[in-house]
Amino acid sequence: MVACPLQKGVAAAITQFVYQRGGTIKDYDQYVNTDSRRFFARMEWTRGGDASSQDNICRDFIAELVEPYDMEWQLHFPEHGARVAICVTRELAHLYDLLLRTISGQWNATIALIISNHPDLAPEAERFGIPYHYFPLNKANKREQEALQVDLLQQNKIDLVVLARYIQIVSEAFITPFENRIINIHHSMLPAFVGAKPYHQAHARGVKLIGATSHYVTVELDAGPIIAQDVLQVDHKKSPERLISMGRDLETKVLARAVGLHLNRRVWIDQGRSIIFD
Amino acid sequence: MVACPLQKGVAAAITQFVYQRGGTIKDYDQYVNTDSRRFFARMEWTRGGDASSQDNICRDFIAELVEPYDMEWQLHFPEHGARVAICVTRELAHLYDLLLRTISGQWNATIALIISNHPDLAPEAERFGIPYHYFPLNKANKREQEALQVDLLQQNKIDLVVLARYIQIVSEAFITPFENRIINIHHSMLPAFVGAKPYHQAHARGVKLIGATSHYVTVELDAGPIIAQDVLQVDHKKSPERLISMGRDLETKVLARAVGLHLNRRVWIDQGRSIIFD
Amino acid sequence: MVACPLQKGVAAAITQFVYQRGGTIKDYDQYVNTDSRRFFARMEWTRGGDASSQDNICRDFIAELVEPYDMEWQLHFPEHGARVAICVTRELAHLYDLLLRTISGQWNATIALIISNHPDLAPEAERFGIPYHYFPLNKANKREQEALQVDLLQQNKIDLVVLARYIQIVSEAFITPFENRIINIHHSMLPAFVGAKPYHQAHARGVKLIGATSHYVTVELDAGPIIAQDVLQVDHKKSPERLISMGRDLETKVLARAVGLHLNRRVWIDQGRSIIFD
Amino acid sequence: MVACPLQKGVAAAITQFVYQRGGTIKDYDQYVNTDSRRFFARMEWTRGGDASSQDNICRDFIAELVEPYDMEWQLHFPEHGARVAICVTRELAHLYDLLLRTISGQWNATIALIISNHPDLAPEAERFGIPYHYFPLNKANKREQEALQVDLLQQNKIDLVVLARYIQIVSEAFITPFENRIINIHHSMLPAFVGAKPYHQAHARGVKLIGATSHYVTVELDAGPIIAQDVLQVDHKKSPERLISMGRDLETKVLARAVGLHLNRRVWIDQGRSIIFD
Repeated sequence: MVACPLQKGVAAAITQFVYQRGGTIKDYDQYVNTDSRRFFARMEWTRGGDASSQDNICRDFIAELVEPYDMEWQLHFPEHGARVAICVTRELAHLYDLLLRTISGQWNATIALIISNHPDLAPEAERFGIPYHYFPLNKANKREQEALQVDLLQQNKIDLVVLARYIQIVSEAFITPFENRIINIHHSMLPAFVGAKPYHQAHARGVKLIGATSHYVTVELDAGPIIAQDVLQVDHKKSPERLISMGRDLETKVLARAVGLHLNRRVWIDQGRSIIFD
Repeated sequence: MVACPLQKGVAAAITQFVYQRGGTIKDYDQYVNTDSRRFFARMEWTRGGDASSQDNICRDFIAELVEPYDMEWQLHFPEHGARVAICVTRELAHLYDLLLRTISGQWNATIALIISNHPDLAPEAERFGIPYHYFPLNKANKREQEALQVDLLQQNKIDLVVLARYIQIVSEAFITPFENRIINIHHSMLPAFVGAKPYHQAHARGVKLIGATSHYVTVELDAGPIIAQDVLQVDHKKSPERLISMGRDLETKVLARAVGLHLNRRVWIDQGRSIIFD
Repeated sequence: MVACPLQKGVAAAITQFVYQRGGTIKDYDQYVNTDSRRFFARMEWTRGGDASSQDNICRDFIAELVEPYDMEWQLHFPEHGARVAICVTRELAHLYDLLLRTISGQWNATIALIISNHPDLAPEAERFGIPYHYFPLNKANKREQEALQVDLLQQNKIDLVVLARYIQIVSEAFITPFENRIINIHHSMLPAFVGAKPYHQAHARGVKLIGATSHYVTVELDAGPIIAQDVLQVDHKKSPERLISMGRDLETKVLARAVGLHLNRRVWIDQGRSIIFD
Repeated sequence: MVACPLQKGVAAAITQFVYQRGGTIKDYDQYVNTDSRRFFARMEWTRGGDASSQDNICRDFIAELVEPYDMEWQLHFPEHGARVAICVTRELAHLYDLLLRTISGQWNATIALIISNHPDLAPEAERFGIPYHYFPLNKANKREQEALQVDLLQQNKIDLVVLARYIQIVSEAFITPFENRIINIHHSMLPAFVGAKPYHQAHARGVKLIGATSHYVTVELDAGPIIAQDVLQVDHKKSPERLISMGRDLETKVLARAVGLHLNRRVWIDQGRSIIFD
């Protein structure tokens, strides 16, 4: 994926980069913001007979594209599956859904470890042979525990952190090293119902829709770039318990969509807004 | 439609009321709130050979049902189509949609008059032969103009007032005589984006859904019982102008749904929440 | 759940059955088909202090309700969680989703065994400690293998059979003993695209929606009562592979919804149509 | 809009065409079919100070883009609003919705005339001052009446024909002169329920969704390129009459979406599939 000022020949140069090496483009998508006159593109290709090392491809990519066109860029090779960490509290559904998608090969990714502020889900981690790191958290130890968590994530070369109903507000020290690489699921339509117990609020107000939002985590609470959102129609017959259950399914689906878009390198962040190449 | 404490034989009594008069039930729906132990039912029937006057039916209904079972109730006869007033500013789409549905007989209702704080749509009213009342509004004259509007509505025996993108906050003096009989369309998912320019806010935040909410108007702004809500998926490519256009279609649809539910007597308000018999 | 001719006092009698035993109704829903004048109700209650045996409750239920009102009926006690068998071929996603929902206690059910015509998923069954029965199938042995499968299901007192992308057409001998207790997921909007490769068909026709349908299995192929259906918007950019992946998520969701409705006893079959108490 | 073989510099050439004339690109979208290695793009621009005649712009467009890159192409100028003919039978809703969108300026189009095989809607045409052409149709006169209709459409320089619940099968002689310029609304999810009374079929089968499809008309019935589709969730409580009413709203919405995409030049047909630049 690349972003650069809109300029003559840039799309041609990108696709040509593949063709002159004998590669085949599997997917190409671009977006031109005609206000800011910036150009954004995502390209996915197979290399064909090109046996260059990854380092050489990167070097050429920089020389032929990044520098001449003043690009911001990301280059990913399928040989490196993403290493994912999942932070949970006690909710199992989101974790299972993420496990399934990695185990079954839907995503080119490995769940390298699980972090939790509760011990409850350790047996599930064991069932799947995934290291489970229990960090009891309270106000007094939060700062030092988060420092340990960041160490753990960095030592394990984690590419993506997923907060899968992790009932903790993570602080700036945790967020900064993983900018645009921490994905959260919020159990409502942001920007509404910021805060707690949205399903009870929804029931009391008689709302006809419940929603879920998955977004990158930024220091400002629940204000990061939105990756995916969806809603369900509900009615007055649904108790708060049923809304919670329906909401759980919706959250799982929206989180999977957001994580999948990220892992398939379909999300680009431009000035706090997400561009989704879907 | 009736509401009463849950008690032995009430559903039977209601349906029996029809059968013993030789009528045929076309539609029957009920809801039991098992928390408050209250019973709610909606029944629609054809009278068959019963030639009783409406007054006699009402009297029997009260004697046999309302009093024995301590009911709140509404009884409607199809001979009385609803008389609707529409308040507009300059937006045409919502008005047309409402006109179509009455003209084509989708609803058992007549649009008796149009009120506006702008003269722009007067020619459209004329095209359909509907009286158009222009009330210029400013801070100084608002109180007296609203008094005149309420007089106009009452003299015309208006059953339902629809605020179809009426860009005015109506005051308590206007609302109180028409409790649960004023329907508004709000161009966002309530309870989010309370206030102005939601589509611009949505674009700036990169939200993936836009919404619309139709609700009864209460003195507290945008906080009345919700009748209908819906959303549309959008993406980063949509300019604020396209969001406005897509939003207009969504608003029209949601408003029509809410007004239709009201006119077909499918909405009951219970402690600030709407029960929709759909 | 009960179904009976519409008659005086039946709703009252049902709710009274609970109240006179000191129970509390958690959920009550009914539907009156005013064409056939039949009454359908679903009630969920907690017993309170009532210490009667299940046999006594059944006996009273029959004496006080079933016989006087000529009811068809089902009575379920939460002490008996449903015993579910899942038939799979090679697809993992649907299986995992069903496993999660039983393991996490979302459903009052146990997955008692897995049947497959392929050995591939045996290690996953082992991971969860669930017996995996591999039945190689071909034209010559199908009749006898199905007989063995039916034996296995009956010996294990299976209440519900879920065909979770089981790529086999089951025959009448398999279906008959489990009438309205076999749920299938079909990877399209029935009644369209009956048959194979719907996502490739969809791509070639340029359709804008893909769908999934979950239904009870009847002897007529893909024609049983529909329990749940849903669709996704797609566009020309989606390759058949992406449609398959999106379709898999949709199927999983629709199948879970159907199985959940069945297990929570929210589905009643009336003359080949499903009535969903939701 | 253009389509051409994928080749070096084509995207740059297109955008450059605007910039070198001092224009501003309002919207640019492209799609690369990496299987067929064909390139498709849609660009919308404002001309800025460029005072060239339309003829000159066309000439340059051909010389600089169409010929060098072997393009299929369409070029539209906002000065020429589209001239639309609507064919109706007796259904009013779709007609009104189309009228509103042209009258209110949502679309850069004029409804030039209405054709009908029934006289019923003539008064509505008169209300809006639109010529209404009544063509009684039967087996004997169909061929000659259709010839007259084609003459009428051509004399009125009609760009787009909308079949808005026109209950007639149009023949090849009608279709051929308006290839990819006749839009129909089909009251079901194609490719399902080809044929009559889909809502009654849907009710009888207990389907949980009803759909609508808008497509270009081709000689093969209901098999033309699909432009827009959508569905609504329904349940067992809905009578065929309510399904018809809900379906009418859905059809209106889907037809408006399809016509809007066409009029805003967002649809390109490639080998029988629609590419939607949305």
